[in-house]
Amino acid sequence: MEKGDKGRFFEDFEVGRVLRHAGPRTVTAADAALYLALTGSRFALQAAEPLARSWGLPACPLDDILVFHLVFGLSVPDLSVNAIANLGYADGRFSAPVFPGDTLAARSTVIGRKQTSSGKSGIVWVRTEGFKTCGTPVLDYVRWVLVNKRDPASPAPEPVVPELPAVVGPDRLVVPHGLAPRAVDPAETGSPWFFEDYAVGERIDHVDGMAVMESEHRLATRLYRNTARVHFNDHVERRGRLGSVIVYGGVVMSIARALSFNGLGNACSILAINAGTHANPCRPGDTIYAWSEVLERAELPGRADVGALRLRLVALKDHPAADFPLRDETGAYRPEVLLDLDYWALLPRRGVAVER
Amino acid sequence: MEKGDKGRFFEDFEVGRVLRHAGPRTVTAADAALYLALTGSRFALQAAEPLARSWGLPACPLDDILVFHLVFGLSVPDLSVNAIANLGYADGRFSAPVFPGDTLAARSTVIGRKQTSSGKSGIVWVRTEGFKTCGTPVLDYVRWVLVNKRDPASPAPEPVVPELPAVVGPDRLVVPHGLAPRAVDPAETGSPWFFEDYAVGERIDHVDGMAVMESEHRLATRLYRNTARVHFNDHVERRGRLGSVIVYGGVVMSIARALSFNGLGNACSILAINAGTHANPCRPGDTIYAWSEVLERAELPGRADVGALRLRLVALKDHPAADFPLRDETGAYRPEVLLDLDYWALLPRRGVAVER
Amino acid sequence: MEKGDKGRFFEDFEVGRVLRHAGPRTVTAADAALYLALTGSRFALQAAEPLARSWGLPACPLDDILVFHLVFGLSVPDLSVNAIANLGYADGRFSAPVFPGDTLAARSTVIGRKQTSSGKSGIVWVRTEGFKTCGTPVLDYVRWVLVNKRDPASPAPEPVVPELPAVVGPDRLVVPHGLAPRAVDPAETGSPWFFEDYAVGERIDHVDGMAVMESEHRLATRLYRNTARVHFNDHVERRGRLGSVIVYGGVVMSIARALSFNGLGNACSILAINAGTHANPCRPGDTIYAWSEVLERAELPGRADVGALRLRLVALKDHPAADFPLRDETGAYRPEVLLDLDYWALLPRRGVAVER
Repeated sequence: MEKGDKGRFFEDFEVGRVLRHAGPRTVTAADAALYLALTGSRFALQAAEPLARSWGLPACPLDDILVFHLVFGLSVPDLSVNAIANLGYADGRFSAPVFPGDTLAARSTVIGRKQTSSGKSGIVWVRTEGFKTCGTPVLDYVRWVLVNKRDPASPAPEPVVPELPAVVGPDRLVVPHGLAPRAVDPAETGSPWFFEDYAVGERIDHVDGMAVMESEHRLATRLYRNTARVHFNDHVERRGRLGSVIVYGGVVMSIARALSFNGLGNACSILAINAGTHANPCRPGDTIYAWSEVLERAELPGRADVGALRLRLVALKDHPAADFPLRDETGAYRPEVLLDLDYWALLPRRGVAVER
Repeated sequence: MEKGDKGRFFEDFEVGRVLRHAGPRTVTAADAALYLALTGSRFALQAAEPLARSWGLPACPLDDILVFHLVFGLSVPDLSVNAIANLGYADGRFSAPVFPGDTLAARSTVIGRKQTSSGKSGIVWVRTEGFKTCGTPVLDYVRWVLVNKRDPASPAPEPVVPELPAVVGPDRLVVPHGLAPRAVDPAETGSPWFFEDYAVGERIDHVDGMAVMESEHRLATRLYRNTARVHFNDHVERRGRLGSVIVYGGVVMSIARALSFNGLGNACSILAINAGTHANPCRPGDTIYAWSEVLERAELPGRADVGALRLRLVALKDHPAADFPLRDETGAYRPEVLLDLDYWALLPRRGVAVER
Repeated sequence: MEKGDKGRFFEDFEVGRVLRHAGPRTVTAADAALYLALTGSRFALQAAEPLARSWGLPACPLDDILVFHLVFGLSVPDLSVNAIANLGYADGRFSAPVFPGDTLAARSTVIGRKQTSSGKSGIVWVRTEGFKTCGTPVLDYVRWVLVNKRDPASPAPEPVVPELPAVVGPDRLVVPHGLAPRAVDPAETGSPWFFEDYAVGERIDHVDGMAVMESEHRLATRLYRNTARVHFNDHVERRGRLGSVIVYGGVVMSIARALSFNGLGNACSILAINAGTHANPCRPGDTIYAWSEVLERAELPGRADVGALRLRLVALKDHPAADFPLRDETGAYRPEVLLDLDYWALLPRRGVAVER
């Protein structure tokens, strides 16, 4: 029997099927350092041990988006080898911080599928759960993917489309266990803005632009264990639709999040991913800019020290963010929009600010 | 006296000479993480601490090919600065696993040399031994290198050509101390194929292709402490024979080995390198594909849990592996062949497989 | 109020102002491994734990230039966002070695400023101090930067130009606490040359050339937390003066220092930076060569084991160092000169050499 795996096709994703993803991976401080070198992230909680400890954690947690990519990457060989596009995310929730030394594993459950009108492909919905090998869940989310059929003539299965919440309700948000900032020094974190300083509807231009080059996106994508060929096979992709490999959408997400430090420097932790769309493909060499919009502000029950902001994070290519582009008059994403991400972030409240 | 070292020439390699290589290097989890980010390797034993421990090791060992490169790299300033080409490897044997915290050192002994017919260069054979600074040997192998003469008019030395075994005999293979997989879960390792599932003569297309770009090969080569100028000096190499720097052959080896996970996912450890040839040069931007052939299958004395497969690993550039190219009708390597490597890998046997 | 920070302008730097830099950062062995992979540095003290311990240190210290970059990087968001050029360094002194696990923070004091004749910009002098969050100072230095004015019409402030020493006097040099090499083996460190082997006026060609490519300089610059846009924003910089981003001058410094191993392999530690000028911009793809000149030799009071060499390190682009280029007949730097750095290095003395 042929041993080189060519990946699953649409026909292989029966609803209810559970896929245990191979390759558990012990994360270390090196993953954190590489993530920093690859993204330029400057959030203090993930980088300064004394600060993390004084805020109640045993060590610097890994960046939440890195955890997302690591769990996502574990699922790629089972889900996305023959994927045409990653269509969206919903109902993503971080349930425990991940520290160096933890070993991450993941499984996915097929929760829906629907053939497309062309008959050549179909959409598959999965819920992916990431957990530590000790059993603690760390993250779960739904994503849906456009997948090729093995045989265009195979019959369309009964469509099953899952109902998904538009937003993770604030009551379902989990503050990382132990995190309790008591004295937040703006001169240390790099931002004077606390939870109360953001108004719903406010938009923030993150100012800086950062290009993503050939080797960087590949290093990042391999670090996340994402092996999808569209990111690596120049021999094929140079002759393809885009004329180059595609940058993994997660790389765009990470750089946009890192850029968002400039304006959201106290948004220290991501609690949930409500929705996400990769609106246009990113190519090596594109310069990424980002802007954010405050969508909602939620106090958290029993917490006077922290609150949650629901934010839209928009990544752009080769277009500064000062005019906040998103959609055109027809409602379609503008061509410079790479990512439209809706997430909940944790911020300290003004009451815990200190001046030193 | 001039202090900048211009490297040794053919005349400097008297047979019997022992070269102690400078620059012992303590390896860490960061080297492992960087190796993963640079190669995309997915073998579980090297990445998941709980799995490594449940298989009898104290921690995740460093990837064997990374150990090979680190030992090789230590030898470069003494051996290859004026090398024209790295011609081959033989009789390579891994004798102990390397863990984060170990410090690696190396020495080489000149075991042969022979002037080439042109009179301008010569072949030098060395046996290189890598060891931990505590004294434990970890790897030794023979390689031979085409080296420039300092003075084309210098007289040809008496030729000494060492006799080398075509293959490391299975009786000389060393299973990493402590390694005893007891319960191997295919859903965890990512491969359903065990020792008994491979037949001699079987060929495996590893399917995926991975390009190696400018910065990646340089980062990898520096990580291995290989400073040979053909990999780094664009100013000179752009005007040279290839029009670009050459990618270190070890980078090709690592990527091919990483690609071979798809079909050989349980080949968790490399025991020996029987032979190896860099058939054609790899340039930045080339996409690497790989295929394997099962050459021999050896049971290991007293071991019901593991066996050894002798494998040929062939790396190709810009050519998918489905038709298993190797040599043309004249017996010469085809132009798309980058590497022809003959090695022994350790695989768990079916008896230790579990279903969970 | 707008939350995306556009950075400080000339007008914002009142003399006497103290800027506490945000983002303390815990350094790890991963930073050391990445630095090695990015620079190719081969100095043994920073790479081999047993050697570092036998020389009296508790562990391998981070490379001094890496410490310099990390402290410099912390200062960038406060100092250099609107900088046009980094004009020079003076009076830099390393006061304590940095080890994995230490957390670095920094602050800068404005010590001078002077509007330029154009009226559109000005020079700002700052003293930057890096320290461990436990309080130990690790490095301080002066740098001066050409910064844009926010408003070209704003009045010129009273010029304040600090007096700076041309050289850090040998009496102010601090040998890293505990460092006492007792038995230095040239076959281990990779260099046969000790303190006494260098003569004032001697020039050393470091022979090798190393190109710095797109992704490498960005990875390095982000690792150092330097976010200055000229290094990252291709969208803007491709249309700018150079037609590309500029490589952070610190990347040039690191590669030149790494190349200097070939000839200065026992220059294990940097004690001071007397002066430094980035003479011409480096672009991605440039190949860097380097040469050194011995400027001064200082015995250190009470130390028979180590001495200090004052060295000029010159980095060149696309030009081998054999003819030691520096200035043209008018006294201006030649176009191939990237960096002219004047520093003090520590070297073991011949009395501690051993032969094994």
